[in-house]
Amino acid sequence: MEQIEQYGIFESRERADGNITGIFSCEETRIRVKAFAVNEGEVMVRFRPEHTGVWEYRIQAGERILRAGSFLCIQAGEGNHGPVSAAGFGFRYADGTEYRPFGTTCYAWIYQPEEIRRQTLESLAGSPFNKVRMCVFPKDMIYNEEEPAYFPYARGIAEDVQPGNPSHNQEEGCNHRKKQGKWNIGAPNQTFWEILETSILELDRLGIEADLILFHPYDRWGFSQLSKEDNLKHLEYCAARLAAYKNVWWSLANEYDLMPGRTDQDWDIYGQKIKERDPYGHLLSIHNCFQPYEKADWMTHCSLQTADTKSAMTMRLQYNIPVMIDECGYEGDIPFDWGNLSAFELVHRIWMGYIRGGYCSHGETYESEDNRLWWSKGGKLKGESVARIAFLKEILQELPQNAEPFCWKIETDPNGKKQEGADTPFAMAMMKLDEEERNRRILDMLPMALCSEECWLQYLGRSCQRELHVNAPGKGIFRAEVLDVWNMSRICASEGFEGSLHMNLPAKEGTAVLLKKISM
Amino acid sequence: MEQIEQYGIFESRERADGNITGIFSCEETRIRVKAFAVNEGEVMVRFRPEHTGVWEYRIQAGERILRAGSFLCIQAGEGNHGPVSAAGFGFRYADGTEYRPFGTTCYAWIYQPEEIRRQTLESLAGSPFNKVRMCVFPKDMIYNEEEPAYFPYARGIAEDVQPGNPSHNQEEGCNHRKKQGKWNIGAPNQTFWEILETSILELDRLGIEADLILFHPYDRWGFSQLSKEDNLKHLEYCAARLAAYKNVWWSLANEYDLMPGRTDQDWDIYGQKIKERDPYGHLLSIHNCFQPYEKADWMTHCSLQTADTKSAMTMRLQYNIPVMIDECGYEGDIPFDWGNLSAFELVHRIWMGYIRGGYCSHGETYESEDNRLWWSKGGKLKGESVARIAFLKEILQELPQNAEPFCWKIETDPNGKKQEGADTPFAMAMMKLDEEERNRRILDMLPMALCSEECWLQYLGRSCQRELHVNAPGKGIFRAEVLDVWNMSRICASEGFEGSLHMNLPAKEGTAVLLKKISM
Repeated sequence: MEQIEQYGIFESRERADGNITGIFSCEETRIRVKAFAVNEGEVMVRFRPEHTGVWEYRIQAGERILRAGSFLCIQAGEGNHGPVSAAGFGFRYADGTEYRPFGTTCYAWIYQPEEIRRQTLESLAGSPFNKVRMCVFPKDMIYNEEEPAYFPYARGIAEDVQPGNPSHNQEEGCNHRKKQGKWNIGAPNQTFWEILETSILELDRLGIEADLILFHPYDRWGFSQLSKEDNLKHLEYCAARLAAYKNVWWSLANEYDLMPGRTDQDWDIYGQKIKERDPYGHLLSIHNCFQPYEKADWMTHCSLQTADTKSAMTMRLQYNIPVMIDECGYEGDIPFDWGNLSAFELVHRIWMGYIRGGYCSHGETYESEDNRLWWSKGGKLKGESVARIAFLKEILQELPQNAEPFCWKIETDPNGKKQEGADTPFAMAMMKLDEEERNRRILDMLPMALCSEECWLQYLGRSCQRELHVNAPGKGIFRAEVLDVWNMSRICASEGFEGSLHMNLPAKEGTAVLLKKISM
Repeated sequence: MEQIEQYGIFESRERADGNITGIFSCEETRIRVKAFAVNEGEVMVRFRPEHTGVWEYRIQAGERILRAGSFLCIQAGEGNHGPVSAAGFGFRYADGTEYRPFGTTCYAWIYQPEEIRRQTLESLAGSPFNKVRMCVFPKDMIYNEEEPAYFPYARGIAEDVQPGNPSHNQEEGCNHRKKQGKWNIGAPNQTFWEILETSILELDRLGIEADLILFHPYDRWGFSQLSKEDNLKHLEYCAARLAAYKNVWWSLANEYDLMPGRTDQDWDIYGQKIKERDPYGHLLSIHNCFQPYEKADWMTHCSLQTADTKSAMTMRLQYNIPVMIDECGYEGDIPFDWGNLSAFELVHRIWMGYIRGGYCSHGETYESEDNRLWWSKGGKLKGESVARIAFLKEILQELPQNAEPFCWKIETDPNGKKQEGADTPFAMAMMKLDEEERNRRILDMLPMALCSEECWLQYLGRSCQRELHVNAPGKGIFRAEVLDVWNMSRICASEGFEGSLHMNLPAKEGTAVLLKKISM
């Protein structure tokens, strides 16, 4: 019997058209997946078995069975943790292993020549990143204006081609728009989808999640202005073709609020559509330019654009799902403020995001002679933030999984007594502020720390304080270290202390302090 | 006839008690000033003639004339520009010279030993500062906990002194509180007031305005909790005694909202009182911890505490008076976030404040063995921001007086047509935001620049862009310079251009660009 590894891929091609379905059963589980067109008159059913055992399947056209069979799903091999899903404010692989996202952004890397794509994968392999934001549709934007060599779909026959004009037999998708018809979302371009699939698989081999952006506004070809029907067709095709890959995430849109002519109700329909057509429940979110999309039942996590990474904590309270800040500005030197952060500033923002209980993505926008900016095309990483992100990752990996961002709660006393300190002039002045402003200020005043009873990781941000009095977050003996987030150094401040500790600090921006329990 | 320089001081002492008034007349002008107590049974009338000519005066007790005479007020000598007042969003001396505040903060410097006070004045003399925020009442706060050698007023007889207790004949104000009575605001302590007056005069000699804080919350002696009657008495005394000094400003409070038991209505009464008792109309404001005080008719300018110095522009629109950000954090290394900014961060905040049309004050809080932090005690300046503030001052002094912060206005078309660009996805997405959030974002996206038709000073903040395309702000030939706000360097980028210019920048934080018209 054919063997397929758990979370691996089963595929079956059929000479058929139209509404083909695969039905996969194992014990109590029964999953239906739709086939997707691969060539003229040929479709494929692609399926991922999520648990071990014998799976029976039937490929049907309506009620007519085209094929039936079975395979044995064997246990996942070492390093195969399965797909990632949300768990509380964090993420977990299917096998229970914690997944802590360290994302980066290469919007149009799959549209680059093969050599560059290979370079991108090499760069990723040597990086701390385990998630990449990438567009399905091609991207038209400054620094990324070359005509793609392929498109996801074919064009129909041009309606406005003038009779008598010389016929153009250029490669698909490379003609000028005027001479071509509308996109035919029913006619997928295999070249494109195979490159995309290979890319997803290559990322998976590197342990990297592919955060696929299904729509985006940076477009000169018309993909951002398809009809509603075509939008739905596109989503159905993506789901049928890509959902079986365990490392796929769905990002409904990059900057949904910049896409003309779509209402929040439309986006809700698109979110429901993906949810309905994805039998595995991949991670699914939507990314904003200005206003974050309101919480929706199909949204598994936030995917925010904001420079204010400290807001991760307030967004947790508001959304009650994991908070990913997928765009907080990029390290670079271009003339747009979203793309000219110093490496230190990006590292600083990223530290604040994680310490406040969120996750931040990296991006890099250095001008270069070859016009190859990582954020758009991939290629080589040039910046200085990447190594520091790796350092942060190393530190966070040492923390117990239950570490939470430090948050001060106003306790309500059941006897109606005033809380200690509530009648100080300071507290009384704060109480006069409106609630939002007050909460913002309280948040600003709280130490930035991730903590549990066993650990206390405090980031001092841009503060240059020379001394710090810290309290151990629980009972027992703690070790204390002073971290330099830029120089990536760790200096032991105490081999063991109980209770509290007076620490001397280097009095510079980018200092952190780590307390870890070493014995009872 | 006695001669007094314009904006100088006329003084007259009388053996008298009670309600003594001085009436000063010159041509159409007639000014009444109240006398103030100097010693038991002795009062003084102090007056500042503001214009040249013969002044007649009478000192009266009720209707009874104690003294009469005249003096000749002669024209102000070189360097004597008179008092400063608000003019639009800026300030001007009485002789029309522009005054651009560059303030610093030495809250309790007048309570330090003479040697330190002299050191403070020497430090100020070598600095770019032309305004000092300083408290009239002593200050009790961490790093400033020594008992003062003098207080502004004497204490009454203690009510709770036990008979039979040994009598303490220590210097006034140095006993423990328990053994003493309430403060007698009718009994000023000459030692204190003479030191304050000398200090004000010394500052004036250096061309520095004395921004006197009349109330503040950092107190262990009871000055922050006087009765309303005593508060008014204190204000009356300050006005009668100090208003004649041309370089005095009134700051009704430091952190008014942290003073227990005072309502906004109380503050309004105090503001009115100072205004009523100050015949010269000195600059008058009030400083907040959290919520800026609402605009009041006695308020000549804003005196804000906020780390967000960019908000100067929105505060201009809101208050329509000059916007001083008197506290935006201090350069230092203490364990409080308001006092551990890097020098660069303070310089950055100060640049943003000025470029956005406001004025920012400096402060310094470095820990030191002698426990002498500039922000509280004065002494020696240790930080690195001062030199950079001097550089900023030098640059701003080169700008024409009519330079205004660059501000983008949404033009309303009288024909109801849409503004150009209003139907872009970007603009449409912004229009969906609530107004406050939209304005905040528009402000964030605007270039930070001070400009007129003759100049364009753009501060790029923390942006590390490598290139900048600039447009000359008017017709004619412009010179272009690249400024490094930290290294205080100026590099010529173009000796002369018309229209627009492509500039190469150092791609680092703290870059500014200065365009100045050099010919038609």
